[in-house]
Amino acid sequence: MGERILRMGMVGGGRDAFIGAVHRAAACLDGRVAFVAGALSATPAKAIASGNDLGLEDRRNYGTWAQMLEGELALPLEERIDFVAIVTPNDMHFPVAEAFAKAGIHVVCDKPLVHSSVQAQSLMQIVREVDIVFAVTYNYSGYPMVKQARQMVGDGDLGDIRKIIVEYHQGWLAEKLETTGQKQAQWRTDPARAGIGGAIGDIGSHAEHLVSYVTGLEVEAICADLTSFVPGRRLDDDANLLIRYTNGARGVLCASQVCIGSENDLRLRVWGTKGGLEWKQEEPNHLVFKPAAAPERIYRRGNQYVCQTAARSTRLPSGHPEAFMEAFANIYNAVGQAIRSGAGADGGSTFDYPDVRDGARGVYFIERTIASGASEQKWTDAKWTSIPS
Amino acid sequence: MGERILRMGMVGGGRDAFIGAVHRAAACLDGRVAFVAGALSATPAKAIASGNDLGLEDRRNYGTWAQMLEGELALPLEERIDFVAIVTPNDMHFPVAEAFAKAGIHVVCDKPLVHSSVQAQSLMQIVREVDIVFAVTYNYSGYPMVKQARQMVGDGDLGDIRKIIVEYHQGWLAEKLETTGQKQAQWRTDPARAGIGGAIGDIGSHAEHLVSYVTGLEVEAICADLTSFVPGRRLDDDANLLIRYTNGARGVLCASQVCIGSENDLRLRVWGTKGGLEWKQEEPNHLVFKPAAAPERIYRRGNQYVCQTAARSTRLPSGHPEAFMEAFANIYNAVGQAIRSGAGADGGSTFDYPDVRDGARGVYFIERTIASGASEQKWTDAKWTSIPS
Amino acid sequence: MGERILRMGMVGGGRDAFIGAVHRAAACLDGRVAFVAGALSATPAKAIASGNDLGLEDRRNYGTWAQMLEGELALPLEERIDFVAIVTPNDMHFPVAEAFAKAGIHVVCDKPLVHSSVQAQSLMQIVREVDIVFAVTYNYSGYPMVKQARQMVGDGDLGDIRKIIVEYHQGWLAEKLETTGQKQAQWRTDPARAGIGGAIGDIGSHAEHLVSYVTGLEVEAICADLTSFVPGRRLDDDANLLIRYTNGARGVLCASQVCIGSENDLRLRVWGTKGGLEWKQEEPNHLVFKPAAAPERIYRRGNQYVCQTAARSTRLPSGHPEAFMEAFANIYNAVGQAIRSGAGADGGSTFDYPDVRDGARGVYFIERTIASGASEQKWTDAKWTSIPS
Amino acid sequence: MGERILRMGMVGGGRDAFIGAVHRAAACLDGRVAFVAGALSATPAKAIASGNDLGLEDRRNYGTWAQMLEGELALPLEERIDFVAIVTPNDMHFPVAEAFAKAGIHVVCDKPLVHSSVQAQSLMQIVREVDIVFAVTYNYSGYPMVKQARQMVGDGDLGDIRKIIVEYHQGWLAEKLETTGQKQAQWRTDPARAGIGGAIGDIGSHAEHLVSYVTGLEVEAICADLTSFVPGRRLDDDANLLIRYTNGARGVLCASQVCIGSENDLRLRVWGTKGGLEWKQEEPNHLVFKPAAAPERIYRRGNQYVCQTAARSTRLPSGHPEAFMEAFANIYNAVGQAIRSGAGADGGSTFDYPDVRDGARGVYFIERTIASGASEQKWTDAKWTSIPS
Repeated sequence: MGERILRMGMVGGGRDAFIGAVHRAAACLDGRVAFVAGALSATPAKAIASGNDLGLEDRRNYGTWAQMLEGELALPLEERIDFVAIVTPNDMHFPVAEAFAKAGIHVVCDKPLVHSSVQAQSLMQIVREVDIVFAVTYNYSGYPMVKQARQMVGDGDLGDIRKIIVEYHQGWLAEKLETTGQKQAQWRTDPARAGIGGAIGDIGSHAEHLVSYVTGLEVEAICADLTSFVPGRRLDDDANLLIRYTNGARGVLCASQVCIGSENDLRLRVWGTKGGLEWKQEEPNHLVFKPAAAPERIYRRGNQYVCQTAARSTRLPSGHPEAFMEAFANIYNAVGQAIRSGAGADGGSTFDYPDVRDGARGVYFIERTIASGASEQKWTDAKWTSIPS
Repeated sequence: MGERILRMGMVGGGRDAFIGAVHRAAACLDGRVAFVAGALSATPAKAIASGNDLGLEDRRNYGTWAQMLEGELALPLEERIDFVAIVTPNDMHFPVAEAFAKAGIHVVCDKPLVHSSVQAQSLMQIVREVDIVFAVTYNYSGYPMVKQARQMVGDGDLGDIRKIIVEYHQGWLAEKLETTGQKQAQWRTDPARAGIGGAIGDIGSHAEHLVSYVTGLEVEAICADLTSFVPGRRLDDDANLLIRYTNGARGVLCASQVCIGSENDLRLRVWGTKGGLEWKQEEPNHLVFKPAAAPERIYRRGNQYVCQTAARSTRLPSGHPEAFMEAFANIYNAVGQAIRSGAGADGGSTFDYPDVRDGARGVYFIERTIASGASEQKWTDAKWTSIPS
Repeated sequence: MGERILRMGMVGGGRDAFIGAVHRAAACLDGRVAFVAGALSATPAKAIASGNDLGLEDRRNYGTWAQMLEGELALPLEERIDFVAIVTPNDMHFPVAEAFAKAGIHVVCDKPLVHSSVQAQSLMQIVREVDIVFAVTYNYSGYPMVKQARQMVGDGDLGDIRKIIVEYHQGWLAEKLETTGQKQAQWRTDPARAGIGGAIGDIGSHAEHLVSYVTGLEVEAICADLTSFVPGRRLDDDANLLIRYTNGARGVLCASQVCIGSENDLRLRVWGTKGGLEWKQEEPNHLVFKPAAAPERIYRRGNQYVCQTAARSTRLPSGHPEAFMEAFANIYNAVGQAIRSGAGADGGSTFDYPDVRDGARGVYFIERTIASGASEQKWTDAKWTSIPS
Repeated sequence: MGERILRMGMVGGGRDAFIGAVHRAAACLDGRVAFVAGALSATPAKAIASGNDLGLEDRRNYGTWAQMLEGELALPLEERIDFVAIVTPNDMHFPVAEAFAKAGIHVVCDKPLVHSSVQAQSLMQIVREVDIVFAVTYNYSGYPMVKQARQMVGDGDLGDIRKIIVEYHQGWLAEKLETTGQKQAQWRTDPARAGIGGAIGDIGSHAEHLVSYVTGLEVEAICADLTSFVPGRRLDDDANLLIRYTNGARGVLCASQVCIGSENDLRLRVWGTKGGLEWKQEEPNHLVFKPAAAPERIYRRGNQYVCQTAARSTRLPSGHPEAFMEAFANIYNAVGQAIRSGAGADGGSTFDYPDVRDGARGVYFIERTIASGASEQKWTDAKWTSIPS
């Protein structure tokens, strides 16, 4: 209420893109962000046309992200974008994020953060030095009932965590869609653009973050089995991992894009010494808690008994379902609060959004998974420290 | 894409209100509507404060709806609001809608439309004469899978409809919340503000519309059992109806606000000579179809096999759940398209939104239900014609 | 353990029958009942052939029930059947039950008990005079989680009951199956054999009993809408009832056999001033309890937290699902315990099985429903007393 | 109908046992098997007492299994048991099965078959030489909808199988139950009695068989992560496996007995190039099939559209749920048919029951899993041939 309306710029997200429109709608859902500038495609003409579609002012409808950076920096501070949302294919995340960050413009970047831990380390250092807000859209952590799960684990309702199964199954790449002209499939299966991970990078990284967000556990070692089922595909389209966590917990992580009939089936189960819990992204408004020796309990979003963090992330009363868009918007709201409060590089923990460290850890997770699943498949150390040597 | 951005004004929906914020977010979800003017409360000071919260320009942040009407009419057409959203308690729907409609401003009005069929008839006539777009926010008809259901019934997939069970259960009024200062409970249980119907008016009318929208059937007769379970409550908080439709189908309609544990549990089941279908508002992304002698089929939003109307009402890919807000936005989008195309009073059927006729039929339904459930409970004729004598 | 094995005779249940085999398997499930005598069809040759199929001794494989009664009475007490199970079409329930009861042989009779309240009164009187165990197989009350529901209502967990919705939907009579030679459909749609009720008698009576068993409430008045959807069918195949209970609770009861895709969909919802509960026959191993202002709880069969009555009615550990057959067997076990303990006519309440009074009340319920749904449809008194004048 | 009633003997299954009672009830469910002899405990006095509980004749209520074998062989063939059910803790499976098999008595043995592949090979050879029927009670393959799944995979409805996830989660051993005197926990956590596998042996072997039964795929290699979470427990209580099948499919198998809130949660998902399917033991009456580009289909037991194998394994109409007991009985029925038809050692494939080869493969699977999960955890060859060198 009465908060300053933030000015958002966007790189990527033009015609043919998918996630850009989600970012725009999510950022603006509560009316506290205005979308005012963009370089919406790598092809300048397409960028301009896309900006016209969306009603950008001509002077802030840029042909390239470099022009956008230059143009915005030339504007007085009270007009300039407060933050940039980077929603390009993965290969452009690093150069764009690096440039805007160095210029002191806050960044919201899609996942996976960058292509390598080297890039990630570099970016972390810049963010720390320039002290900007930098968020990575691990959007599933924006769901209220995921926040409820995190709270319950943190409160010790499950006891010591023993076992975690996280799955992210999709089926849309079960056939060779990348040769049909489908843009989303094209870049996601192209190592030059997507990076070294296929399914493990595109969606496995969400699964990794979800576990980290809910349980706070750290990965110690990984044993991965990676497959490219569709003939001729160069990246994995199916990944199954055994995971050991530093506290002794054991995990299974599955990510696949060839599971026909699975739409966007991210689900998490966690068991501890005192109980278990279960959450499914496709039915996100409730959380199942299974205490020892007592009836299973269904926590539903919007009720008075949910924790404050979950309550603050909710717009509608119980039974009026919220979904993907609202969860995504919760990330943007947290970012907005961090920016308004001048939080800087450490805003993520205070304002509850995934930050550059989460992004860097995710990149490392992908690297270690690929290392484990490569020719000599075996258990591989995967413990992340913010500055791996 | 590239559509003109419409200007929305709002009457009601200020501090303490619930549904106004939903209307604003839904209208603006796709970036094609701008909220520019408001008279957000019946109390002028509160109206102004509410408008300030939301960043309205001072000159268009009105103390009363009459001032707003006058102020907007004084503006040039290219600045004036295109339409007004009326989100006040029910008793104000009629005077506000009447005034704006007479002035040629398009209207989106919450349900139930007005307090009586006399008012409804009057409004229908004005809308027809002035030839404006007039929508009633039976928002549940905005769900894609409800549109899929309507299509399948229309295509004859169910054969001749025999039986319909529609239920709308809530539990939030199970105790005497209206004496605790809760505003939503206060006006909804006050006949002067809510009208003659309690649960049957507030949510039963949604159920009536859902059946009408999906099946196209007309009610012939009603036998209602109405109860006020909470001591001292003056309106029904529980309603159970037997219904006969003109084609011979039989129905049951339940609406209650004292069903503890039910949140916003609107669900529809329809059976015909060839199959049955089932939809639940709290899990809105799928529709169950049960054909004779073949496995049950689950239709999921966002898949290629859904009908065009459902496909057009979707923003996200399958498995990325949409919910209440998007369905509500679909109503606003349809209204926007009608306004832009100059559709006038008959826009509802072309552009797929509930119109003043649906609203009037809903009012008549409430009246006949109350008549049936009054002292001498019995079957009561309830066939609506657009101009009852 | 170590209990005397009871000797069961059966009337009806031969070739072409459905429920007879269920009765035999259920009665014998725990090895405490032996099936030793039968008159398994109204056609003597078929009766004999059916008994041969099942390995009955020739001397106790009777051509008619009258011969069976005579033959068994001629045997010494330690060989004679302890009880007879009557599983004929409804029209034979009365004469057979009357004859065996008068002879002092305990009776298990299928539902609905008899064709009229006059018959039911007569039977009640005989049972009382001869003081035998007499059970009616309202088998759904044998489910452990139904017993849990009854306990929770009885314990006041739901507070004062306000609303009850019970539904029993099937689809197998959606077409005119009775003219295809299907025996089950033939007699169930023939008033001479089934009695005055179609769906309301065949399955509506189960629904009535389920409500009575779980809530203990008494019906005060009924308003019924009865339909025969299939052309030429003489009995109702769809029934929808509004019900008022003597404590002020309101109810809806739906029974239909034309709901395509519904298999045996009996479900119960009950709401009170403190919470609600829900149970579905097709997923019988759990019970949903919705307390006010706390997370929903799922009670699962076989856990330590269920009540003693539910625990005693369970054979397998939790997660090893039990189903229809075990619930049916629970009725027979209770009957067996009553017989062994010499309980007599009042055994039902002690040993937890539906008795002749429940059967008689069910017959009255069918009569009053038909009365209400007849030509002049209206609310009809339906309060049962064990001896209606 | 009219089939010869087979005579069953039992070793194990007395007082304090769990699964023996299930075997007896399952075997006798359809009235075609009589339980006539037993050596129901390793403690002779307890064996006798248990037999008395169950009404065994004194002369066939044996103190030891050796006495039983001798006693039965002394009886004329037309009195002697047709088969023995071995339901002891695992360590007694081999000696008892070996002795009865050598004597030409058909065997039904619980799983896992024996303690080692050496024993299993020996048993396979005996069974082949004596040519008896030998079944292993992988009872979950007795469920009708599992048979439906097998048929659909076999018919190619899923195309080439790519991925299989099978899970079997229980929570009953989450605490150190074995030191409380609970017999089931005692022997299952004792290597001397249970064998080398804990959860992987007790329930993981069921999961292995379920995959094999439904898909027909052969395991090529295993990478296992085995944990004993409960301090002091000597066998694994949690097992997570990556699996590669010889056709190139990839799999995940989880088996755990420390997942609090999981009761008997066996579930299977299979995806191929044309679709996916899903089945859950705790809701066994339906099977989900997800074809590419078409609505998900729910196959329900008892409908005309299910395959013949599923239809033959069903007793009750659709909607009248069947469960664990009936599935178990289906194994016994198949065994009975094999015995009556004189099928011999190869009866399993014809009569559809798991045979000694399935049991031996399961033992090998446990061995290779333990090998993989031992000190140097790694991928391990696990391809079974009926005669491993």
